[in-house]
Amino acid sequence: MNEPSRALSLAGVREAHARIAPHIKRTPVLTSSALDAEFGTRLFFKCENLQRAGVFKVRGAFNAVLSLSDEEAAHGVVTSSSGNHAAAISLAARTRGIPAYIAMPKVAPRSKVAAVRRYGGNIIWVQARGTVPTSEEYDSTVAETHARTQASVVHPYNDVRTILGQGTCALEFLEDCPGIDTLLAPVGGGGLLSGTALAAKGLKPSIRLIGCEPAMADDAQQSYRAGKIVPQLDPRTIADGLRTSLGDLTFPLIRQQADDIVTVSEESIASAMRLVWEVMKIIIEPSGAVPLAAVMERRIAVQGRRVGIILSGGNVDLDRLPWQSAAP
Amino acid sequence: MNEPSRALSLAGVREAHARIAPHIKRTPVLTSSALDAEFGTRLFFKCENLQRAGVFKVRGAFNAVLSLSDEEAAHGVVTSSSGNHAAAISLAARTRGIPAYIAMPKVAPRSKVAAVRRYGGNIIWVQARGTVPTSEEYDSTVAETHARTQASVVHPYNDVRTILGQGTCALEFLEDCPGIDTLLAPVGGGGLLSGTALAAKGLKPSIRLIGCEPAMADDAQQSYRAGKIVPQLDPRTIADGLRTSLGDLTFPLIRQQADDIVTVSEESIASAMRLVWEVMKIIIEPSGAVPLAAVMERRIAVQGRRVGIILSGGNVDLDRLPWQSAAP
Repeated sequence: MNEPSRALSLAGVREAHARIAPHIKRTPVLTSSALDAEFGTRLFFKCENLQRAGVFKVRGAFNAVLSLSDEEAAHGVVTSSSGNHAAAISLAARTRGIPAYIAMPKVAPRSKVAAVRRYGGNIIWVQARGTVPTSEEYDSTVAETHARTQASVVHPYNDVRTILGQGTCALEFLEDCPGIDTLLAPVGGGGLLSGTALAAKGLKPSIRLIGCEPAMADDAQQSYRAGKIVPQLDPRTIADGLRTSLGDLTFPLIRQQADDIVTVSEESIASAMRLVWEVMKIIIEPSGAVPLAAVMERRIAVQGRRVGIILSGGNVDLDRLPWQSAAP
Repeated sequence: MNEPSRALSLAGVREAHARIAPHIKRTPVLTSSALDAEFGTRLFFKCENLQRAGVFKVRGAFNAVLSLSDEEAAHGVVTSSSGNHAAAISLAARTRGIPAYIAMPKVAPRSKVAAVRRYGGNIIWVQARGTVPTSEEYDSTVAETHARTQASVVHPYNDVRTILGQGTCALEFLEDCPGIDTLLAPVGGGGLLSGTALAAKGLKPSIRLIGCEPAMADDAQQSYRAGKIVPQLDPRTIADGLRTSLGDLTFPLIRQQADDIVTVSEESIASAMRLVWEVMKIIIEPSGAVPLAAVMERRIAVQGRRVGIILSGGNVDLDRLPWQSAAP
């Protein structure tokens, strides 16, 4: 099913966009003169928090679900996810009228479990030895479900269809803001960053593309530097969307095409998240705040540049905000 | 300065829009299929929370400040406000390079005081007998400041320039979404609603225009029904932008052109606010949630309609949210 040499290209991203466009939002790009003044640059925010289901992952999910033949689709889809991909696949499957089976960890945020249920997904709890399931524990739950239902497996990031779908975000972004010279995206499993690389470097080879991740889950930076996949063993970041490791499809794309991977502290993630809420009046989740945290920490030269930032999602539990313990 | 018979027209709104367009954002209109399904209608949200300074009031403020002659402008501007107009006037004055004097109540939300300071406004605290200053107490502080500085007075709502500026929001809204048949706006002093009436009824006489206000500050509904201004005496609503009374310019426009005024409970305001945060991933303040609260309370027939809602602003204190006491 995965044929990377053929499909992983800008043309593949364009095909994906044509396929999913009727089902997703063309999200707005917002700017803030206050933040521009603060950082001495021009920032452009692609608001995937305002995407359907509150996250860019609907792009890859719709692309995968709509790519199935009718015969494949009849059995449904199965995937594993800590949350956002789970909701996205549930929504895409419901739209096509097929069942979705979602392997989720018991530690998934309440808001993300609720989103899967709202979209009619069938949750299958992953049995894990530790608090957070390992990749192997996720995979075995998915494999068992596939054996039982014949549902098509859609990997949350290491899947050609997923990667191409995620790339449609950067495609729209550069169509709307062709002047961007630096592009920042968060990196967890690498689906968004590798799809972004295909679209952005394909459209504008001179663009500087930088992946941003929590220092507490820095497997992408380690992998990028080592030249081989270094798995994430014990991620403890509040950026719950970025706890996964790179895959064998996403890693080579990122290694070849990203210009750097930078890491940020947990404190910066919470500060950047709050800054966006206060100044821009939009809700972003911790994972979505990671690129701006990198700008705040001055990990990336942005002075005088035109910097695109992908705000990847906005799904948070409003009763458990990072700054709530500090409230009066 | 106020020449209502000449200026209060759709043409006046168009002139204001040409004047302020370089300084404001053309805010996006967002939709939500989840909310549409919930309420059996099509909702279109004009996101003035994403406006500069997080509120529609920059429209009226820029229009007023940019309407001054150079000689008038040299002395600066003075106004009174519980918060949002204060920040808006400060921003507009700073943009023109003139001083802003802002009469504010000591009970103004911290976030709104901080916004005025950020934009360089000079705060003058209003001496009040009660917790919230009366209109007379505001007016005397403004009059004293005007006498001292010769600064031009810009009323937060009862001012032709302010009303025409606020009308530019509906102008953009109906340009972008001409199919809207019902338009909901919050009403406090009536600047937004009366400006909206000029623009919306001017562009589309068949449109149904409904003002929405807290039951705890229902002076607009009382005034509308009585046919004369009934002042707001003791407003205790969480919708801090809607505690003011109608003025002698805003009331007649609203009486003549609005099709109804409906009221909502405090509980509904908090619920609607949280619903928008959770589903739409944008931050709105309580005042901005009042029209959706009216839809939730079924105060307005919306089934099968195309309903435009003005989300008026997004300035909240993130450490004091209406639902925080209920958090675990």
